[in-house]
Amino acid sequence: MGEHEVTDLGTAAPSQAAPADASGTRDRASIRRTNLGAVLGLLRDGGPRSRARIAADTGLPKPTVTSLVAELVGLGLVSEGPARREGAVGRPGTLVRLDGGGLCGLGVEISTSYVHVLALALDGSQVYAHRVPLAVKAEGPDAVLDLTARHIADCLAALERAGRRPVGLTLAVPGVVDSASATVSFAPGIGWRDVAVADALRSRLRRAGVPTLPPIALENDAKLAALAEYAQVRGSGVRDMLSLTGERGIGAGIVNDGRLLRGADGFAGEVGHMPLDPARNPCVCGRHGCWETMVGLDAILRLAARGSDPLHDPDIALEQRLADLRRRAEAGDPSTVAALDRVAHDLGLGLALLADVLNPRLVVLGGYFTYIGDLLLDRVRDMLRTRVMAPLAGSCEVRLSALGFAAAAHGGAHLALDAVYLRPVP
Amino acid sequence: MGEHEVTDLGTAAPSQAAPADASGTRDRASIRRTNLGAVLGLLRDGGPRSRARIAADTGLPKPTVTSLVAELVGLGLVSEGPARREGAVGRPGTLVRLDGGGLCGLGVEISTSYVHVLALALDGSQVYAHRVPLAVKAEGPDAVLDLTARHIADCLAALERAGRRPVGLTLAVPGVVDSASATVSFAPGIGWRDVAVADALRSRLRRAGVPTLPPIALENDAKLAALAEYAQVRGSGVRDMLSLTGERGIGAGIVNDGRLLRGADGFAGEVGHMPLDPARNPCVCGRHGCWETMVGLDAILRLAARGSDPLHDPDIALEQRLADLRRRAEAGDPSTVAALDRVAHDLGLGLALLADVLNPRLVVLGGYFTYIGDLLLDRVRDMLRTRVMAPLAGSCEVRLSALGFAAAAHGGAHLALDAVYLRPVP
Repeated sequence: MGEHEVTDLGTAAPSQAAPADASGTRDRASIRRTNLGAVLGLLRDGGPRSRARIAADTGLPKPTVTSLVAELVGLGLVSEGPARREGAVGRPGTLVRLDGGGLCGLGVEISTSYVHVLALALDGSQVYAHRVPLAVKAEGPDAVLDLTARHIADCLAALERAGRRPVGLTLAVPGVVDSASATVSFAPGIGWRDVAVADALRSRLRRAGVPTLPPIALENDAKLAALAEYAQVRGSGVRDMLSLTGERGIGAGIVNDGRLLRGADGFAGEVGHMPLDPARNPCVCGRHGCWETMVGLDAILRLAARGSDPLHDPDIALEQRLADLRRRAEAGDPSTVAALDRVAHDLGLGLALLADVLNPRLVVLGGYFTYIGDLLLDRVRDMLRTRVMAPLAGSCEVRLSALGFAAAAHGGAHLALDAVYLRPVP
Repeated sequence: MGEHEVTDLGTAAPSQAAPADASGTRDRASIRRTNLGAVLGLLRDGGPRSRARIAADTGLPKPTVTSLVAELVGLGLVSEGPARREGAVGRPGTLVRLDGGGLCGLGVEISTSYVHVLALALDGSQVYAHRVPLAVKAEGPDAVLDLTARHIADCLAALERAGRRPVGLTLAVPGVVDSASATVSFAPGIGWRDVAVADALRSRLRRAGVPTLPPIALENDAKLAALAEYAQVRGSGVRDMLSLTGERGIGAGIVNDGRLLRGADGFAGEVGHMPLDPARNPCVCGRHGCWETMVGLDAILRLAARGSDPLHDPDIALEQRLADLRRRAEAGDPSTVAALDRVAHDLGLGLALLADVLNPRLVVLGGYFTYIGDLLLDRVRDMLRTRVMAPLAGSCEVRLSALGFAAAAHGGAHLALDAVYLRPVP
């Protein structure tokens, strides 16, 4: 039942990520907590099912399952009721399903061009979302944090009115973060360096009179996007995945054997500056031929049109400009077609490299790729087929994200909800 | 006590690699087995210690530790005796230490230029080693397997005479393997394709009258080398590591949060063909600028000297040729110095890329780098410092392997021994 693990997505401290020891060496309460979480995770990933089926799926004895389900019902996290069987005859069976008890997780993304506040219920359904366009770099951290705090306060007030209780909030930023101190170390895309964002938000929210705050965590946007994309395929057998977020920069989130790959300091997934061709364009980092100068948003717009073209107008919403790009491609505009071909080639080049290093089963293209990626996919898949060293290209599938620019906020909310799966009882 | 885990190195099936479930949902026998393994692993990684210390280190109650140690003594896996305290006065305490009970693991590497058969005792000490130079590609699979089987039979006979019992054998090959069927899918360096090596060796050993055979597994050489290198630093706090094996090809083994990264099909770590410069030399794979054409053994020899030079003479042992290269560098020979400088630059370039993707705490350079890597290290470290995006280059340290060409065989033996740590009782 590997796919029903709940701890494995966590970006938590090593002690929590090492359940082997926990298993062997901790007490009965800890084992029971793990089992409660395992049942919850099974219902989330596999859907409603009978107690007998839960016992079969988890390998737990049936009396244990009965007792666990009773405790989860008591906590308001699951409910029991008759199965909906269309056209079936006879007595309907009783199914256990996730309920949620009004719990929700918050994800807040501060991106280069917007702030996005979102809440998901325990079953992953969206219960609140609000996105505000914003020139984040130009505004500076103080003004952005002021505005973010206001939108979080609005969200918390709306959730309270709806009788929902937030269990946590995860903030997503495009850059290198120190999760332990919830500090943005270095985020060149928004011009932030050493900003203690959780503290800054907490003090603003307290000043605004928000009575109770959920715990606030911080994570890199690409890693959170990967969590959100993994939540979409969890239960389908995919355990190794690469999620690529294309904006001005390119970031990756890596899921290895069902766990987010963070690396020694949480810096893993910095793929934007892979040096793929020293003869190519200069990068903001001072070098040449970095991958994001080839496949980032600026690259495709620059290749497709001159600087005075409306494609480059920051006052036009990005989705609209990308729709414009699509129309030009469909009309056969030569420079647009050439730009897409070039970007698809270079995207495939870097993905093939990453597929050789990581051997993912699935690559999900998010960010701006969500909007025009279908125009690139054939060429990208072709590059993978011909360049990956593993037989059959390691059976690596490439798909477009269904979440688009909302992926990081979704991932933040999922990570906040993980606390419930890790520790269903207080 | 994350660093004392024993399951986390395993390349075993997902069910075994998912101890979170095991913990929560399996029976008392399974918990006891996990605890027995945890005590064994602690003694291996942390050295001899008192029962009280074991209790403190594992978090297990002292009576449980006493009972576990008694069982391990009964199994002949640990022994208890007085501490050796130089110059101390008073009654010496009693320490528990790994014993091994004559158990050992076998690692057998079939490389491009040799076959290496090696056995390690439970504590990692070497109890048998034999290496035979061989032109593996030219000989073809049948002849090589004949010779390998003979050397394994010799090793098994020697171990039997010494009263040692092999618990398993892992075969290492330079290429893509299907571990489930123990088949070499594709190993261009030795010219093998779809060779069912475990079956082939078993039938040869049976024909040769070997009475009992240990289980035979197969794994990629770079992954096994990574296991061996990780065994060297296990217990030191390193949980994220990249091990690079430099021969004619370049392979990597990746350890992420204490676990070998295998990818969806076990193909991860294929770093030799990372496309770093399309303007550079053609590769055997048909493309240009692959990393191994820049930093592989052939690259450094080609850059250092013309084809007629003794450096290229296959009849001279590689270690000897590398010693010759070192003498030339130390004498200041311009083409040697330029070759080393070029290779160090390109090695640093690729390592910086991998450090950005994986954020390892430690990079270990093995294979031919073991012999001349000290001449490259300054430049390589400098490249990492200036190119890695993470602050302080993600604190990534670069070291030379202490195992050299023996790393893969060592890793094979360690993997075979893991079975004892995973399942100390039958």
